[in-house]
Amino acid sequence: MTQLRFDVLCIGNAIVDVIADADDAFLEAQGLTKGSMRLIDEAEAERLYGVMGPGRELSGGSAGNTAAGLAALGCKAGFIGQVADDQLGAIYKHDVQSLGVEFLVPARGEIGATARSLILVTPDAQRTMNTFLGAAQLLDASVIDHGAVADAGILYLEGYLWDPEAPRAAMEAAIADAKAAGRRVAFTLSDTFVVDRHGPDFLRLANEGKLDILFANAAELASITGEQDFEAGLAILAPKVPLLVVTHGEQGAVAIQGSERARVAAEPIEALVDTTGAGDLFAAGFLAGQARGKGLEACLRLGAIAAAEVIQHYGARPEADLKALAGGLLA
Amino acid sequence: MTQLRFDVLCIGNAIVDVIADADDAFLEAQGLTKGSMRLIDEAEAERLYGVMGPGRELSGGSAGNTAAGLAALGCKAGFIGQVADDQLGAIYKHDVQSLGVEFLVPARGEIGATARSLILVTPDAQRTMNTFLGAAQLLDASVIDHGAVADAGILYLEGYLWDPEAPRAAMEAAIADAKAAGRRVAFTLSDTFVVDRHGPDFLRLANEGKLDILFANAAELASITGEQDFEAGLAILAPKVPLLVVTHGEQGAVAIQGSERARVAAEPIEALVDTTGAGDLFAAGFLAGQARGKGLEACLRLGAIAAAEVIQHYGARPEADLKALAGGLLA
Repeated sequence: MTQLRFDVLCIGNAIVDVIADADDAFLEAQGLTKGSMRLIDEAEAERLYGVMGPGRELSGGSAGNTAAGLAALGCKAGFIGQVADDQLGAIYKHDVQSLGVEFLVPARGEIGATARSLILVTPDAQRTMNTFLGAAQLLDASVIDHGAVADAGILYLEGYLWDPEAPRAAMEAAIADAKAAGRRVAFTLSDTFVVDRHGPDFLRLANEGKLDILFANAAELASITGEQDFEAGLAILAPKVPLLVVTHGEQGAVAIQGSERARVAAEPIEALVDTTGAGDLFAAGFLAGQARGKGLEACLRLGAIAAAEVIQHYGARPEADLKALAGGLLA
Repeated sequence: MTQLRFDVLCIGNAIVDVIADADDAFLEAQGLTKGSMRLIDEAEAERLYGVMGPGRELSGGSAGNTAAGLAALGCKAGFIGQVADDQLGAIYKHDVQSLGVEFLVPARGEIGATARSLILVTPDAQRTMNTFLGAAQLLDASVIDHGAVADAGILYLEGYLWDPEAPRAAMEAAIADAKAAGRRVAFTLSDTFVVDRHGPDFLRLANEGKLDILFANAAELASITGEQDFEAGLAILAPKVPLLVVTHGEQGAVAIQGSERARVAAEPIEALVDTTGAGDLFAAGFLAGQARGKGLEACLRLGAIAAAEVIQHYGARPEADLKALAGGLLA
């Protein structure tokens, strides 16, 4: 068996998170919906930053977090995302590379600033994200390394990046590369607003056989199926993709692959601090299991373990030794 | 009584901390002395950054941390320090201002990059700092706001900033302003390397009656007095300044003011995470007590409480509600 260059190649928004504590009154005064992600322009980013508290800057971005988690679990991971030629871009690149993730896209000048997400964490550990996409939304199809995509066992795509036009074309090109090479494509729906805008497009991709693994949470499942009941939603969506993985918050997660179905409970935690990155790290754990050929239940448990670690500290990337936490599951 | 514009005005290096976990083997491979602070140039900063792990970026700088602590304790604080006109400079300014600290020096262009300190935190919570001073060492006497200095009850100076020439002149000018206005000057020795280079200069300032409150830790006390015994060192240094405050790690801290002497134990903590900022926050607590006219023991306890908070998380600025932790001590 030929050794692949990447277990998983991730494409997503290259975003530096600016994480600040906030209380409910601040969210209300700013007209923000707790737990949501909204896109903002640079002027609003400046305004909101000006009134929020001191921040911790940490690299983030959904698929970037997943790549970080994959590397922490010992997988060979690559990342495709666009940063500007500025200090935050250099920080982003450093943080990804220092984890052993290959960062495949050079910084570009004169495309504005590197993306940042102003993340307000309330005392209940919920995160409310205000994202200025900046350079990230200018990821161009021309920078996709076709050879790298063809040499990755799984191509993992972030739904958030489906929204702006240029990266969508870049991801379509990458999907074509992956399928031509006989690789699997994994996709996360990312957010209900993404599903609201592009749900039909995602179902088209599924119909065309371009999505092999689909990640969603309960809200996204309801949004794309139009069915509020969790089980009824699963029954609608599962037949459309080879492997469906749906997280269900504190109730755990479900995976359905043809006639096979597995479910795990959420991992117990000591203290909930910041839920940012929970879904991203769940995907990392699940995909790490897939890359090693593990069964559905082991993959779900790996996802639950990685997610539990990341929600117990600020920031959306692992700080503890995920390989140790995974124990025998990855052996 | 006329209301002062500032309880405490702090002058120091405006530094963004880049905090990464590291193990002892990494420190050894890099030839670093655990627990120390060393100054590095931009090339070494780039090199070391390239081999260290992913970072959390948080505003820091010794006197800046003290200003943040003072604001968190409800004091009116100002900060004088130089940042460049870049993203890290904007982050620094934001973080200081968002705490309610007045940031008194505008960013300057074409002076290189905003200062950053690459801080490696080992599993024993010790921090090893590698600081590229960049723009911070270009603080110029011309930017000192003389009216602001004269309108601050206490001028607080960071010894680190005595090392480069321009800021030293700026601080000498500020001391003159403060003394002319009848204000008190507080000074921290910062580090043994600073004492090694400038100890005689600090003793000259003391002799000239320009230092009203002197902060040191046990190592700096030994360095400036040439006396390894803690009590003997105190006996040498205390007569030279109106108020001497010396921290002694886990053994607590001592304050000596003329014939009066107070001592407190360190506050108990749950989990030691990162000792960065312990001395800075101790100074904040002590000065907050001084600004409110509290007695020596209350001032020491406030220092111990603020220091205990900051060493229980990553980063050198308070995250918990210091006013609540201080309870009746500030009433």
